[in-house]
Amino acid sequence: MSVETAVKLESVDITSGFWQRYRQLVVREVLPYQWAVMNDEADIEITMDPQRNGQDRSSHAVANLRIAAGRMDGHHYGFPFQDTDVYKWLEAAAYSMSYAPNPDLKRITDDLVELIAAAQQPDGYLSTFFQIEAPERRFKRLQQSHELYTMGHYIEAGVAYYEVTGSKLALEIARRMADCIDENFGLSEGKIPGYDGHAEIELALARLFEVTGVQRYLDLAHFFLSQRGVDPEFFERQIEADGWERDLIPIMRGLPRRYYQAAEPIRDQKTADGHAVRVVYLCCGMAYVARLTGDRDLLDACHRLWEDIVSRRMYITGNIGSTTAGEAFTYDYDLPADTMYGETCASVGMSFFARQMLEIEPRGEYADVLEKELFNGALSGMSLDGRHFFYVNPLEADPAATAGNPGKSHVLTQRADWFGCACCPANLARLIASVDRYLYTVSGTAILSHQFIANTATFTDGVRITQTNDFPWDGEIRYEIDNPVRRAFKLGLRIPSWSAGTARLTVDGVARDIDARDGFAYVNVDSSRLTIELELDMSVRLMRASNRVRETFGKLAVQRGPIVYAAEQADNEGPLWLYTLGHDMKTDARYESDLLEGVEIIQVDARRQPQDGADAALYTDAAAAPAEAARLTLIPYFAWANRENGQMQVWLNSGD
Amino acid sequence: MSVETAVKLESVDITSGFWQRYRQLVVREVLPYQWAVMNDEADIEITMDPQRNGQDRSSHAVANLRIAAGRMDGHHYGFPFQDTDVYKWLEAAAYSMSYAPNPDLKRITDDLVELIAAAQQPDGYLSTFFQIEAPERRFKRLQQSHELYTMGHYIEAGVAYYEVTGSKLALEIARRMADCIDENFGLSEGKIPGYDGHAEIELALARLFEVTGVQRYLDLAHFFLSQRGVDPEFFERQIEADGWERDLIPIMRGLPRRYYQAAEPIRDQKTADGHAVRVVYLCCGMAYVARLTGDRDLLDACHRLWEDIVSRRMYITGNIGSTTAGEAFTYDYDLPADTMYGETCASVGMSFFARQMLEIEPRGEYADVLEKELFNGALSGMSLDGRHFFYVNPLEADPAATAGNPGKSHVLTQRADWFGCACCPANLARLIASVDRYLYTVSGTAILSHQFIANTATFTDGVRITQTNDFPWDGEIRYEIDNPVRRAFKLGLRIPSWSAGTARLTVDGVARDIDARDGFAYVNVDSSRLTIELELDMSVRLMRASNRVRETFGKLAVQRGPIVYAAEQADNEGPLWLYTLGHDMKTDARYESDLLEGVEIIQVDARRQPQDGADAALYTDAAAAPAEAARLTLIPYFAWANRENGQMQVWLNSGD
Ligand SMILES: [Zn+2]
Ligand SMILES: [Zn+2]
Repeated sequence: MSVETAVKLESVDITSGFWQRYRQLVVREVLPYQWAVMNDEADIEITMDPQRNGQDRSSHAVANLRIAAGRMDGHHYGFPFQDTDVYKWLEAAAYSMSYAPNPDLKRITDDLVELIAAAQQPDGYLSTFFQIEAPERRFKRLQQSHELYTMGHYIEAGVAYYEVTGSKLALEIARRMADCIDENFGLSEGKIPGYDGHAEIELALARLFEVTGVQRYLDLAHFFLSQRGVDPEFFERQIEADGWERDLIPIMRGLPRRYYQAAEPIRDQKTADGHAVRVVYLCCGMAYVARLTGDRDLLDACHRLWEDIVSRRMYITGNIGSTTAGEAFTYDYDLPADTMYGETCASVGMSFFARQMLEIEPRGEYADVLEKELFNGALSGMSLDGRHFFYVNPLEADPAATAGNPGKSHVLTQRADWFGCACCPANLARLIASVDRYLYTVSGTAILSHQFIANTATFTDGVRITQTNDFPWDGEIRYEIDNPVRRAFKLGLRIPSWSAGTARLTVDGVARDIDARDGFAYVNVDSSRLTIELELDMSVRLMRASNRVRETFGKLAVQRGPIVYAAEQADNEGPLWLYTLGHDMKTDARYESDLLEGVEIIQVDARRQPQDGADAALYTDAAAAPAEAARLTLIPYFAWANRENGQMQVWLNSGD
Repeated sequence: MSVETAVKLESVDITSGFWQRYRQLVVREVLPYQWAVMNDEADIEITMDPQRNGQDRSSHAVANLRIAAGRMDGHHYGFPFQDTDVYKWLEAAAYSMSYAPNPDLKRITDDLVELIAAAQQPDGYLSTFFQIEAPERRFKRLQQSHELYTMGHYIEAGVAYYEVTGSKLALEIARRMADCIDENFGLSEGKIPGYDGHAEIELALARLFEVTGVQRYLDLAHFFLSQRGVDPEFFERQIEADGWERDLIPIMRGLPRRYYQAAEPIRDQKTADGHAVRVVYLCCGMAYVARLTGDRDLLDACHRLWEDIVSRRMYITGNIGSTTAGEAFTYDYDLPADTMYGETCASVGMSFFARQMLEIEPRGEYADVLEKELFNGALSGMSLDGRHFFYVNPLEADPAATAGNPGKSHVLTQRADWFGCACCPANLARLIASVDRYLYTVSGTAILSHQFIANTATFTDGVRITQTNDFPWDGEIRYEIDNPVRRAFKLGLRIPSWSAGTARLTVDGVARDIDARDGFAYVNVDSSRLTIELELDMSVRLMRASNRVRETFGKLAVQRGPIVYAAEQADNEGPLWLYTLGHDMKTDARYESDLLEGVEIIQVDARRQPQDGADAALYTDAAAAPAEAARLTLIPYFAWANRENGQMQVWLNSGD
């Protein structure tokens, strides 16, 4: 038996058929498609972003960099943060090459890194909008400028590219950006005592610290988190000095301070308010920095906001953001299905936050939410063909409502080619391409396996864990552990909340009681080989929300394992609201290999009211409505809107 | 028996206790209060209008007239149509003096008419905004200018004031305005081939024609109706010439042509689209002009739009306008209760439209809708104290949602002192003060009594109809007819749709079968005295909407007679959505003289789910929910929001 030194994760190879398909899709379709779009070489239709704030032609994102690098003439086009589309794509490309080396792609990304280096200013600054259009306004309107947000996204990409390819240039650009920001921001004389309107730089700097070990970067991240909201008038003062009328993104000026999480110090904030993506990026940064610095107040804030989001402001699919106005959270238990936002980026960011919390504490709750995002709210952001994207992910949609009611016009019912504000597509690509990084947390001598995404992982001393399964369709999870030096460690197996109390565990064929601690069952490993079988409960479950949620009162959702289901008009005669489910309706689950790239569908015996005639009175005396026996077919939520346009509902009417 | 010449209505005195209270309230509270507000002498809080488009201080409406008349210095303040607040008030004041002569008020109104005359330009033009701020832009931006709308409102007021007080000056101002418009608009060389963005002038000119007999006015009204939408680019061309950037009301420029009913000729329009108040004012004008000219195409358009509104786009309370975006109609069967608009003015305008249709055709359906508005959707626009007003009339409201979800921020849960855009308060006042004009339609030798508002009406040859009742609380409607010269006529008694098949009729004590034709039961009168008793069914009724309406699926509303009921948190423990009604629940109706100025309340045996704990999981396995027996108290919808702030629901969850 070896001594108990910390275990380290060395590599993870994903073998899950479900995720292999998505990860190969990123390589084959998503990355080439997005690269073409950003180079304005794709024949696409640009959909206005749901906020309708400008942008009506092609991306121009790479062109902006070329102009900033002096390799092309022209004006900047797009949002001030247009560069981030390229950076998120570069990050996704980097991850993809860790599992699918690709010399052609590598040539493109090397050239891109070299272009970015050429666009970067001598002092490390890089924001093509300001360099091309308004160099004198650098860092002068941080409420709207997204400069630190933009550089933060590059830093994430540069670190990833360095990690995967060893590119020193990629890392050097990131360091120079961080140095530039460090030079300009802080509390000492002559520095800017502020922060970006959109959190992101904090988590990026923490990541840069982790790879470089440069303490200044962590200190700077900590500074931004500590300073945020301390002087609530910071943005207004900058705007006054810059000139009120010179907005970069006009609709942003009037948004309240809480939109930017800048109304009070984040340590004092009690609820998750404002722009949902900003909130979760900020939370991810707080958790990251709390772990690296041991700052308890930051961690307390993380717990508080996590609790508020997950217990009172999250859709059953993991989506967050209840309103399109400000792409924002609203208030506790306000979870309308048809006017909601549920931005793809917010689910991606929530995955980041969950992962960081897992790094701090081995609690299954974090992994439950991560799984919810991966299999539902985040994944729904992309079509099965990898070339169409949702910005908004509703839980109820109707093409007639989208076309006819302006309060729902942001709810697309078919994924778009691209968006004026294209934050979501590459964000989801980088999550999928890096999903191998979300499966394990190693803490001292414990290895936590928190996702049931089949893989082979290698750790210190040749420890290898091979997880095989047909998840999310099947609940048999098999672990084979090779431990050649008989190292002693604990393997924590997550018992998902949806199978708590019903999971079964055998270790080397011997049944074990599951005595889960904070959502993990721990198995001591000290033999050279061990086989563990975990049997999760994949029964179809009818779910309800707390009756504090007005919008789902009397409604039911269907879930199986981690997958939340949806009814689509492609399978069921509309209007879908005419179907009612009982609490004891018979359900069948069946794998359909030819449907939607292979999904488990669920059929439910339901009842359906005959539709009233078009000439029937609009209001009549109520009588117990006649209803006919009907069968409702449900598909996984993430796969909706991949067939003909039509209605979709996650929450179904009930009636016993 | 006299010869069969046409009967004429000579006078109507309202004796209804319910309406007497409202009409005295107009005299005692509403008119003095509104006059003080418009003179900036009231200590009030101005609530932003729900569109949030400007206006944050006092009315200035009378001051604008004084400035235009050269009696005061200063700038115009308010919307370009600010004058109409004064005109609608003057019209209401005029009507009030027909039932409550008031020398003090008369001095004020005479002075006001004289002020208006002084503000009017030599050629008859009057719009204080343009006179004070932009005389060179007269009639140059009709999409937003509201100039004809504004003068239309004066014309209505001037005619009313003339009718009640005999003021020749009041009528003369109106005629000069009409002459000015006639001078400037038309298809001949040098005239403007256009129309106002907001219909109103059409119905006003028709009314002016009726009182003056001047054919030109009717022709001009007909021209505006015929020309509307014929050249869909008319507005855009004007705006181009006037200068794109010089908006009068910036949010209006981008609104689609359908918002203004200017996308195609109104004779071709198939659905009621765009701004709801514009639609119903236009419809009222069309019906008015169709009757006076015999234009069948106009009448067909009225039928089409009536049918679309009433059968597919009207709330059970008569409110219309399903979205705050553009204060507009959306699409068929889209009737959300909590994000709706239901502007008070739209219900007032719908009453106008219904009245005009009744003048054309004796169909009970028009009177049913008129009654629905009078007792529900319009009346809810004013508080019981006459000093607070709703712009938006929702069917479901929650202070938490109003405060916390921007998609519902337009839904006030307490009536406001006044609004930046104050179109509604005086509009409702003029409807209440003139409700005596809505009770009868006389057509040839038939008298239609279509409202059960107790009154004494005098007709040609001393015919007198005395209607007594305690409506809307009681269904016994008694008619005493005095007919001294034994004139022969038919009295058409409306059999309301809510009592069709269950009403009972006796004539001089003898029961009669009711053989209703288009909603009216006709009784031949040729004796000198006749007593008719109509007994209407006042049972409490559980109502449902067509299941084509998604938002009300599985929900029930409670109605008794014409009154639609609502549950309020003041009477019932919140959240109100936890209550469910069965289809056979026991109900009790009881008059409460001390509650809400005297209302019939309804109590329903219901069930109520215990509220889930704040620490309960947001999503759990569904089981048939436990529910406790509960009693739900309902009050008339029009009387909601007269006590403490809280939730309100018209549509209640059901569950047998
Ligand atoms: Zn996004
Ligand atoms: Zn109004």
